[in-house]
Amino acid sequence: MASAEHDLIARYFRPLASDAGALGLIDDAAVLAASGDDLVVTVDAVVEGVHFLAADPPDTLARKALRVNLSDLAAKGAVPAGFVLTLALRQAADDWLAPFARALGEDAAAFHCPLLGGDTVSTPGPLTISITAFGRVPPGRMVRRDGAQEGDRVVVSGSIGDAALGLDVLKGGKAAAALAGDAAARDFLTGRYRVPQPRLALAKTLRDHADAAMDVSDGLVGDLAKLCAASGVSARIEAGAVPLSPVAARLLASGAVAFETLVSGGDDYEVLASVAENRWAAFEAAAREVGVAVTTIGRITAGAEPPVLVDSRGQAMALQRLSYSHF
Amino acid sequence: MASAEHDLIARYFRPLASDAGALGLIDDAAVLAASGDDLVVTVDAVVEGVHFLAADPPDTLARKALRVNLSDLAAKGAVPAGFVLTLALRQAADDWLAPFARALGEDAAAFHCPLLGGDTVSTPGPLTISITAFGRVPPGRMVRRDGAQEGDRVVVSGSIGDAALGLDVLKGGKAAAALAGDAAARDFLTGRYRVPQPRLALAKTLRDHADAAMDVSDGLVGDLAKLCAASGVSARIEAGAVPLSPVAARLLASGAVAFETLVSGGDDYEVLASVAENRWAAFEAAAREVGVAVTTIGRITAGAEPPVLVDSRGQAMALQRLSYSHF
Repeated sequence: MASAEHDLIARYFRPLASDAGALGLIDDAAVLAASGDDLVVTVDAVVEGVHFLAADPPDTLARKALRVNLSDLAAKGAVPAGFVLTLALRQAADDWLAPFARALGEDAAAFHCPLLGGDTVSTPGPLTISITAFGRVPPGRMVRRDGAQEGDRVVVSGSIGDAALGLDVLKGGKAAAALAGDAAARDFLTGRYRVPQPRLALAKTLRDHADAAMDVSDGLVGDLAKLCAASGVSARIEAGAVPLSPVAARLLASGAVAFETLVSGGDDYEVLASVAENRWAAFEAAAREVGVAVTTIGRITAGAEPPVLVDSRGQAMALQRLSYSHF
Repeated sequence: MASAEHDLIARYFRPLASDAGALGLIDDAAVLAASGDDLVVTVDAVVEGVHFLAADPPDTLARKALRVNLSDLAAKGAVPAGFVLTLALRQAADDWLAPFARALGEDAAAFHCPLLGGDTVSTPGPLTISITAFGRVPPGRMVRRDGAQEGDRVVVSGSIGDAALGLDVLKGGKAAAALAGDAAARDFLTGRYRVPQPRLALAKTLRDHADAAMDVSDGLVGDLAKLCAASGVSARIEAGAVPLSPVAARLLASGAVAFETLVSGGDDYEVLASVAENRWAAFEAAAREVGVAVTTIGRITAGAEPPVLVDSRGQAMALQRLSYSHF
């Protein structure tokens, strides 16, 4: 029963299906064995021309498609258990599929998140990649969006805004012009855009110490607004406390980019968490132990209004555009 | 944080997310609570212009997108636990989304398979619907493809070929011409194509009595070849034993359609099972109890060659095209 579809799966994806539950991709379904844990399920789809460009390298595309899901699992306090892949392709081109599958396999192995199954279909339209990923948490311990409490610290991992600047570099925007002579800085930013670092090392810390968490995918301020809305609270964020990479800080200081670009641009894939004051020392120590920088950028406040971003004089800053919307 | 995307989800899909694990679709992830069961995971994607036509009604499209996954779960012996939906849309049109979501919600309720989460993205290309569905089975009890044994009966549920004829009717082919005066027959066939009946009632019977099973989605003979290849066996099928609906039998007898169309056309979404002779009486009795017709169409044989289909004189029939392939 050799068909081209069957051959494609056997050639490119069977090597990634190392987990027993994948049944070598020869069955109609995969199995996630009972473990006593809850399963956390997350879905992210990317479309050529909308989320990525036709010219984007297939290897970084594969990594990003998986990592944005791993970032969700990390923010929910979950340990990866596997993923399924839906690939809608115009054609089965070796020079695209081979590097895509190789990079996907490398990341699946590195993050202990094996391919369990999927569906490969043809499309006359743009390449579309949809991944559903699974993680495990002890029963009832998924870190939710709706647990933020008045008085909590608002905390983010890593640095914010690099990915938005990386996209600007790729599009030849202001950041590209300002960094015309600095290939290392451009590479840093485009790397942050193309290959996010899921903060899986923080999963246990979040489970143990956070009241609420989510990953920052659509812009820091907009995503914080979602967390606050889900929790029935508001927040006050100090613009000067938002952690920036040295490159981003330099571009901001020189006036080459606006602060708004950094906090509304999206694609950060850092963790945003709400942490009670009396858990902060333990949270910070646990994060330090796993080598992930975490920074307090403000406080959760009472109220139903959207979070306020204040400048160094305590003045509220107005933002035009909080986050990306598809429609 | 009202965005158009957020509004779309709240308006159309939140009402379907009745399960506690969906967290009202406000979180980044859903939870499948630990239950002691294994989770069976299946994925099916459909693309406008490839799997369905732009003119297809959104309500039947929704039902089929979910039911093809439920058909997989049924064949694996699983009880539905929920699903996640990826929807890539050109535009957020009320007159498409409203009937789509309503029908999806009706089927989700009818089959006890709640919406748990998903991702809605824009696309410049064809509408693409990808569903990942989850089912539960007792640990280690998923019915696999690779357990068929020499001497087993080859069994199918329901009738075969109606959906292929239904597609032919919709395309104005030979079946449409032969049934020009019979609207009821045309409606029966197009209904079988557009709204498959997942054989969830057979799930426990399969778990209890089948050596192997899968659903028939790409054509009976081609799918049987896959089951045989996975199990390291062959099979001998009697063409005259393949169960046909009265309409299909009439079209075949009149010469309006070829037998090959019926057994290679796909979209049947019936169950194909391999059942040991000493389990057959119990299998048949259990199937009768839940009201699903099951028919023995042949036997599993030793060997590695593809299954043989024989006519009433015991002569092997040659088929041109065993099943659908995307590439």
